[in-house]
This record gives sequence, structure tokens and C-alpha cells, in this order.
Amino acid sequence: MSGNLIVQKYGGTSVGTLDKIRKVARRIKKSRDAGKDVLVVVSAMAGETDKLLAMAHELSDHPNRRETDLLLSSGERISSALLSIALHSMGCPAMALTGRQMGLLTDGSHTRARIREIKASRALDILKTNHVVVCAGFQGVNEMGDVTTLGRGGSDTSAVALAVALDADVCEIYTDVKGVYTADPRIVPNARKLNMVSFDEMLEMASLGAQVLHIRCVEFANNFNMPIVVRSSFDETDEGTRIIEENPDMEQPVVSGVMHDTDQSKITIMGVPDQPGIAANIFNALADASISVDMIIQNVSAEGHTDISFTLATTNLQEAMPIMQKKGKAVQAKDVTSDSNISKISVVGAGMRSHSGVAARIFSALSNEGINIMMISTSEIRVSCIIEKSKTEQAVRALHGAFKLDEEPEPISQSTTGASPTA
Amino acid sequence: MSGNLIVQKYGGTSVGTLDKIRKVARRIKKSRDAGKDVLVVVSAMAGETDKLLAMAHELSDHPNRRETDLLLSSGERISSALLSIALHSMGCPAMALTGRQMGLLTDGSHTRARIREIKASRALDILKTNHVVVCAGFQGVNEMGDVTTLGRGGSDTSAVALAVALDADVCEIYTDVKGVYTADPRIVPNARKLNMVSFDEMLEMASLGAQVLHIRCVEFANNFNMPIVVRSSFDETDEGTRIIEENPDMEQPVVSGVMHDTDQSKITIMGVPDQPGIAANIFNALADASISVDMIIQNVSAEGHTDISFTLATTNLQEAMPIMQKKGKAVQAKDVTSDSNISKISVVGAGMRSHSGVAARIFSALSNEGINIMMISTSEIRVSCIIEKSKTEQAVRALHGAFKLDEEPEPISQSTTGASPTA
Repeated sequence: MSGNLIVQKYGGTSVGTLDKIRKVARRIKKSRDAGKDVLVVVSAMAGETDKLLAMAHELSDHPNRRETDLLLSSGERISSALLSIALHSMGCPAMALTGRQMGLLTDGSHTRARIREIKASRALDILKTNHVVVCAGFQGVNEMGDVTTLGRGGSDTSAVALAVALDADVCEIYTDVKGVYTADPRIVPNARKLNMVSFDEMLEMASLGAQVLHIRCVEFANNFNMPIVVRSSFDETDEGTRIIEENPDMEQPVVSGVMHDTDQSKITIMGVPDQPGIAANIFNALADASISVDMIIQNVSAEGHTDISFTLATTNLQEAMPIMQKKGKAVQAKDVTSDSNISKISVVGAGMRSHSGVAARIFSALSNEGINIMMISTSEIRVSCIIEKSKTEQAVRALHGAFKLDEEPEPISQSTTGASPTA
Repeated sequence: MSGNLIVQKYGGTSVGTLDKIRKVARRIKKSRDAGKDVLVVVSAMAGETDKLLAMAHELSDHPNRRETDLLLSSGERISSALLSIALHSMGCPAMALTGRQMGLLTDGSHTRARIREIKASRALDILKTNHVVVCAGFQGVNEMGDVTTLGRGGSDTSAVALAVALDADVCEIYTDVKGVYTADPRIVPNARKLNMVSFDEMLEMASLGAQVLHIRCVEFANNFNMPIVVRSSFDETDEGTRIIEENPDMEQPVVSGVMHDTDQSKITIMGVPDQPGIAANIFNALADASISVDMIIQNVSAEGHTDISFTLATTNLQEAMPIMQKKGKAVQAKDVTSDSNISKISVVGAGMRSHSGVAARIFSALSNEGINIMMISTSEIRVSCIIEKSKTEQAVRALHGAFKLDEEPEPISQSTTGASPTA
């Protein structure tokens, strides 16, 4: 299908009502009338998955995962059938495909399956007969022929995986925002929509809590170099944000965006004997419970003892504390405390690789606002700081201003900005 | 599994809420704790199928049938997953199976598929591991691997077909009534629940509008001699109605029940030239439109002309009238009229085969009430009359009384009544 196929993914809010399904159908038809082959991936109608999950949890404290997958996958089957019916009624031939029918084969991990392979021959055959293919997102089948689901953000991953399997030109992700912004527009009114973001930047942003794309979908696109476009399903004029492989022709500001994450907590184990292996001992206990730790700091040792602090998602705090209290006792620590009154502020930009001084500019911007930095972590293209939660919005605005993110960036390479790298 | 397997089918009202699903789960567990292998077939939660269908019809005047099947089949997937989750939470291991997973293969007629074959090896394997199998009713797959549905009453048919394929002892159909009654208890307060009904009688009753079982399900059970028990999912003490092959040991009253159907209309074509082939011409036109005709009468010819009247379901009247008006013109009939103000009263009983005088008793009972009979049709075990609609309830009560259906019948053979013919 190379050269003519686009994959379009519509999220739950985009198909949340029958009226919105009709609007989405009109938009798909427009792409088709423009001569494109279109494969659509669709999420469940907004609220549907949560409703089904709530029923399962009302019946059981721990609904078994195999049946939960069968239950949840119904949401996308319903929306894909309805969208296909809407397309038909507009004279646009369409066929809805389930996870099995689109050949999306996964491993056996129910509720968080990984894609193993896509056997998309049926989708290809249908596209050849000039039908739009409407795929139920979020779902696949395992070796047993049982339905599996891909976990949160799974429909995005389905879309990118199908785009790769069918060698599509681009995977368009339609959502309720115009694209990827320099900061959350609810906090920074003059936040700017980015026209282009590199996969590396998007991976950082997604892992820092940008809701717009799930990290697994970006990883998949990055691995197979499948361009993603994030755009609004309600605004047809805006071309959204293009997420592509970094290349020399790309507009490359030092800093692309400021992210914040208020779902962070800190645990401190005080007075730990400063002996080799103790930190490993502590963090292995968390790894065993599948709890991810983000930043870690250890104080300078005093009198043979040290304090170890680390951050984790607040949703994991309740589970982590008893584990840490037990572990603290075992290593004869003096105390174990927690603090949910923190947030993480991050500055992301591919240009950091070639430009120094970003961290210094962050520290002085926060210092000017009287904001104290509790912990710091960095990657090649990111600087993150833990601060007091009540200062979150103030910090985001200060950093957005400090890096002049409201202004179109000056290109740091000499090439033309805005040129499509795939053109 | 012979000798130990029962199939239980629970309808939409039986699983209409999470609370009712829990009750059904407890009942299934009880059968299992009593040492039975149990395969359950479940309908969609009450109202769910209608809700999904209404959405399809809001999007399209003629929703395409392939996608409609995908849409509607979700209802049973949801209820089967929920029931399985409820069973798990009670410590009763269970696995939900979709139409494909239970191997229910159908022809390609979407929305009214016929079962071709059941490849139940997976269900058998699961039963051997001491799990309850919970099957999503109403659905199968065709040769393409597309989801099909079996039409109204399809879950009953799924249940009987699975019972046959797995050689179950019995297929229990759980519903919101206690069984099959001598008449509608809302009309005849002293209507009596029948303990046993023959397949032939049940076939007549189902085709006469008895809601309790769909005719296809009874046909299937009759063809493979699979006993059906209809019983209440809310009343555990009543043993319901057993539907079995007629045999000499069976309690065999002359008349088993009085049925009524108010969804009947009459079309009359007046002044049709009395020539060979004209009736065929007229009724072929209806057959071409897939409209079923029930009773037909033709007046004695006068002056080379005759009147032809026939009855049909009122739901088909609107479609049939323009066809008949066109056809009436073509054969130079004088007029075409319709009448929805009628109903059909039927008396059913296997004992009619060996007992005469039933029709005479019906006519005199109706005559005593001053009820005029417009049309009559009979089968070996049934007499039906068309009467004025407003007299329906009066007629049902009169016939119920005339045949003393409120009393336990005296056996007409010399053998013991009530003995289980399969024991």
C-alpha cells in the first residue's frame, strides 16, 4: 500500500457520542475522497472502558485478567462497528475488524499484552477493494486465541503497529487537543503548539506525563521510524504536531517544552548504616513489587550513617510504604518518612545535546521565584527538578518564560525551518 | 461428558443487573457443588441489545448487517465475562468463551445465521479441568471468520446446539417465568403451569407466539431429541416445564393450552376474477418480499369473481399493502382492504390426534360467548380461529374453562402419569 495509505487513530473523546462518530466519519470520508487509502483505529467511546471496569470490580476485588480482557475489548468492538455503520450510511464502504481479524497477535500477558506480530493480510485485501478498514484498537489475540488488551494507551500502539505493518506513509493520532504544546495551556496561557518534535523528545515528554501520547506507542514509532502526527479531531485547519526522527534539517530549539507532574511522592529512609549493598537491598524490594522508582539521592555519610530519598508515583505510595518500613527495620534505619507534597518540573529539548548552560538557566529561573530545588535528575535532552507542589504552576510559567517558549524558535542550524523531513 | 453434563441458559432478565448476575453465579455454583459439569449460555443484559441496535439505527436507516452483528455480539461477550468474573470471585473456576471459541460455526447470513456445525473441543477441554464454561449466546462465526448472530431467541438455540454437541443430559432454559402455562396467566388467573409438554406441542405453541421459547430452539431440540427444561431463575423450588419427545408413558391431555396472538391483521382482495393461477400470482408477490402468510380463505365464486382473505403479522401489514394494491390492480380486483382489528386464538394438544370433537367444543364455547369466528385453520394437534380483537381475553378464558385446563388432567392412557420418560 506504500505511497497512498494513511492510518488514522481516533480516541475515546473523538467518538464519545453518535454525533461525534458522524463527524469522524465525515473526516475519514474526506481523506478517502482525496484519493487516500485509509485504515482507521478507534478507541472505545469515552467512559465506556471505565464503566465496564467498574462493573468487573463491583463483582470481584480481583477480576481475573483473562475475562477482564474479554470484557474491556467489547468497548472498541462497539465503537468500530458504529463508525463503520456511519461510514456506510454516507456512501463510504467500510469494514470493521476485531483484533483477531486485523491479525494483531500478542503475548499472553492479559490486560498488558505486548504485540508480537501483525498478520495484516485481511486488512490489505479489504483496502484493495476500496473499503475503509475500521480496526478496534487496544486489543489482540494470544496463541490460545483468547482476547488480550494492550494496557492504557493501547489504541495508539495498535495504530502505529498497523501503520508499520502496512507500510503506511504516516500514522495520524486524532485527539481532543491540537497537538503537543510547549507547556500545559491550562497553566501557561501563551503556551505554543509545536509543529515538530523528535522521537527522543516525545519519549521524554511521554514518560514525564504528557497525556497526548503513550510512551509505548512512541517507542514503537521510533523503532520503526513511522512518522506520527498528533492533531485535533475537532479542528480541521490545524495541522497538528509532527513527531519524526531527528535529522539535521529539523528545526531544533535548545528547549522544546516544560513538563510538570504532580503525581509524585518522596520516601526517605533515615539513618541507614552506610554499608555496601544496602541501597541495592532496599531497591530490590521495590522492584520485586513492580514499583518504579524515579529519582534517588543519598546524603553524604555522617558518623557511618546516611539518608536515602527517592521519588515514585503517588499511586504506588500506599503499597511502597509498608515494604520500606519493613526493609528499614531490617537494615536498622532510624525512620522511614514520606512526602506527597512535591512535584516534578522538567525541561526537554533535543538541542541540549549541543548547548550547555540549560541547567544553570533553570536553576536561576527557579531561584528568582524563590523556589527551592529538592532533587535533580538529568538525561542528555532533559533536566528535571523536584520542588514543593504548591509552587508547580509558578515554576512552569517561570521556565516557559525563561526559555522564551511562547516565541517561534530561531533555528539553530542554518537550514530552512519547517521543511518536512520526509518530503 | 455424557451422564454428568448439564447446559444452563440464562436470559437477559436473569442477568439484567450485577446483583442478578451474582444470584445466577450462586445457582450455577450449586449445580457444580452437586457434582455436575456445567456449561452456561448467557444472553446480553436486559435492554443491552436494544440499546446497541438503537444506536445503529440512529446512525443509519439500514445499518449494514455484518457490522450490526459485530455490534450486537458485544452484549453477550460483556455478560459472559461478567458472569465468569462473578463465579471466580465465589471460588468457582470458570472460563468465558465467545462464539468462535465455543466453535459455533454458521452460514453467512448476518443477523439471522443458521448453525452449521459446532466444534466444541475447547469447551470439552475446559470442562475436563473442572471449570464452568460460560458461553456468549446468540453468536457464532462464519467461514470468513466474521461474527454472525442467530436472530431473536438465538441464545436458546445456542444452548440447545451446545447441549447436543456435548451430549448433555438436559438443556435448562432459565427465564423470568416458572415454565410453560396452559394460558397467559395475566389473562387467565387460574392458568396452570404444565409439568411436561411434547416437542410437537411446544413447536405449535412457539409458532403461535408463546414467548417462552423460540421455535428454532425447539426444532433443534426435537431434531436431536435433547430434553429442554424451562424454569424460573428466581424460584429455585419449582421444577419448571419439561419439554420432551412424545412417548406412550406421557401424561397426554387432549388439550394442553390456549394461545392467543393479537399481532394479526387481515387483508382482503375483493372481486378477483376466478381464474386458475391468480391466487398463486398474489401470494408469490408476498413470498418475494419475504412476508409470511398465515391463514387463507377464498369465498365461493359468484359471477366469475371471488374474494380472497389472508392473515399476516401486523408488523408486515405496512409493507404488504402497497404490494397487494399493485397486484390487485394487475388482476383487475375490485378493491383491497385491511383489518387490524382481529386476533388469533389457538387450542393445542397432542391428544387431539386420538380424540375427536375438539373443534366442535371450541366452536360451541365461543358461540356461547357470542364470539363470531371469521377464519379457521387446523393442524393435527391444533385448532386456530380468527376472531374480533376486542373479544380476545374473553375467548381465552372461555376456552380455558371449556377444556378444564385449570385442573390437573386425567391421564388418557393407562400408564402412570408424571413418570420421567428419560429416567
